[in-house]
Amino acid sequence: MFVGIDIGGTNIKSVLSDDGGKILSSCDTATAKTPKLINEGIVSLIDRLTSDACISRGEIQAVGIGAAGSIDRKKGIIISSPNIPCWKNYPLVAALQKILSAKVFLENDATVACAGFWFRERKKNYKTFVMVTLGTGIGGGAVIDGRLFTGQNGSSLEIGHMTIDVNGKECICGNRGCLEKYASATALVDYSKTHLKEYKNSSLHKRMKNDKLTAKIIYEEAMAKDELAVKSFEYISFHLGAGIAGIINIFNPEAVIIGGGLSNAHKLIIPTVKKIVNERAMKGMKEKVKIFAVKNQSVIPALGAAKIALDRLTSTHFK
Amino acid sequence: MFVGIDIGGTNIKSVLSDDGGKILSSCDTATAKTPKLINEGIVSLIDRLTSDACISRGEIQAVGIGAAGSIDRKKGIIISSPNIPCWKNYPLVAALQKILSAKVFLENDATVACAGFWFRERKKNYKTFVMVTLGTGIGGGAVIDGRLFTGQNGSSLEIGHMTIDVNGKECICGNRGCLEKYASATALVDYSKTHLKEYKNSSLHKRMKNDKLTAKIIYEEAMAKDELAVKSFEYISFHLGAGIAGIINIFNPEAVIIGGGLSNAHKLIIPTVKKIVNERAMKGMKEKVKIFAVKNQSVIPALGAAKIALDRLTSTHFK
Repeated sequence: MFVGIDIGGTNIKSVLSDDGGKILSSCDTATAKTPKLINEGIVSLIDRLTSDACISRGEIQAVGIGAAGSIDRKKGIIISSPNIPCWKNYPLVAALQKILSAKVFLENDATVACAGFWFRERKKNYKTFVMVTLGTGIGGGAVIDGRLFTGQNGSSLEIGHMTIDVNGKECICGNRGCLEKYASATALVDYSKTHLKEYKNSSLHKRMKNDKLTAKIIYEEAMAKDELAVKSFEYISFHLGAGIAGIINIFNPEAVIIGGGLSNAHKLIIPTVKKIVNERAMKGMKEKVKIFAVKNQSVIPALGAAKIALDRLTSTHFK
Repeated sequence: MFVGIDIGGTNIKSVLSDDGGKILSSCDTATAKTPKLINEGIVSLIDRLTSDACISRGEIQAVGIGAAGSIDRKKGIIISSPNIPCWKNYPLVAALQKILSAKVFLENDATVACAGFWFRERKKNYKTFVMVTLGTGIGGGAVIDGRLFTGQNGSSLEIGHMTIDVNGKECICGNRGCLEKYASATALVDYSKTHLKEYKNSSLHKRMKNDKLTAKIIYEEAMAKDELAVKSFEYISFHLGAGIAGIINIFNPEAVIIGGGLSNAHKLIIPTVKKIVNERAMKGMKEKVKIFAVKNQSVIPALGAAKIALDRLTSTHFK
């Protein structure tokens, strides 16, 4: 039995899974404001998971945690997390191991999302694929030759910080022309706001509140065929396609899978991405690669965290 | 005992190695002009290797081959090779296995160069590193979590075709703004030629023959402090640095190693690459990564081909 926990800025999602990936129970709670209260929330989730599945806490072999932000996976420390600011160099793994008396493993949120997809879709038997998580920023995960890839300290696949325009826009990371400046939810909103003046009849004018637009609003208006909203999605999809073409040339993967909140807008994104990949990726690689969005992704990161707990507990290479 | 063979447009290099990577003998021959003559050349190299080491051909457990161009590693076919045009969908592995009565394995030239470096420097115990081969184009190889990465069909790590300028120069691959349009030996020569008019006193004017310049000439003049030649190296090193920063953000590697013919100019390239990586790669990744050029690389690809033969013969994952 393995527990997987996906800690986001708003909610904590959890699942109890067996070693075959079957979900025995699942539950959520709101993310509290202090490390101590977050830990208590996790303990009560685990109590609910075990009670719902009629097992004892002692039957849990390991707990996997996925958390957004900069982490040290080996030391089990959250270095910093923009959405959970109370964590600063917080030794989450040590704290939880003490309370739970079970092995606890920590990974990046995009890594657990990737692992969760892999676990759920294991019948497809993908050996090498890349997951791109589209949200406020752009993250990523990869399975390479049948093994989850994490890089040295758990921060690999920062696809959002690949340069696609060497003299382009400044990014908060210190680089210029990073993919996420052109293809994230933030880039979508920026594009719409910058071009509003040129589209006097755009319905986005009415939807602005206090000079604020959201990706959700632009999505709704694009689905209703608002020209600027549609153009904004074309803009990010074009750049995402160029970035993914580079990813395909580097990884020669069987599939590139789009996850993250913005992937719900896959109808507005995937067709352009496929077109651009077909124009830009190399022959011999682009023909075979599948590009699609994750379906029903809500429980996937928590399931992936459980899968990672299983792997790190039992594998010799993946510590 | 393993034989490694590195087939280039001009020469074929070969080594006989034991399974610990010790080179027992090595020899070269010129690359012939037909598949049959190339095969005969390889057989005579193997005869010399075994005779020099006082072993019989039957003691060879496997032969590894590295070849430039588009390959199908699983089928053992050379699809096409710009520098060896007599190969067109040529089943090299089947042809050699028939003659040699030994298992033969085929890989991409950048992959064998990567494997060769890894084998020679195994005391450094690198688990995750990327090799960038700088020449007429830019290729690459990677070791990920202690295993050589080849992608689905042996064509992964086409680092030269990563987009670094989304609306930039057209590339022969069909993409725009590919790294190798800005950072290869070809890009070096293009930059010098395009800017010659602005540098009336450049010694490159005298070194041009029939409107032709070479990377070697530009290197020699840059070492003699010719301003345009130095600027040309700065130009490619800046772009190479931006590309490598992206590679670091994706792979979070312990090292990025520069190989290929142009890496002999490492004194003119590496300092700028390191400076740009420091400016552009992400915190937490850039501090630990080592960036350096391969030393004494002549025998490395053939040694890597031998290592690959050993791996593919004995490993369960790496077929």
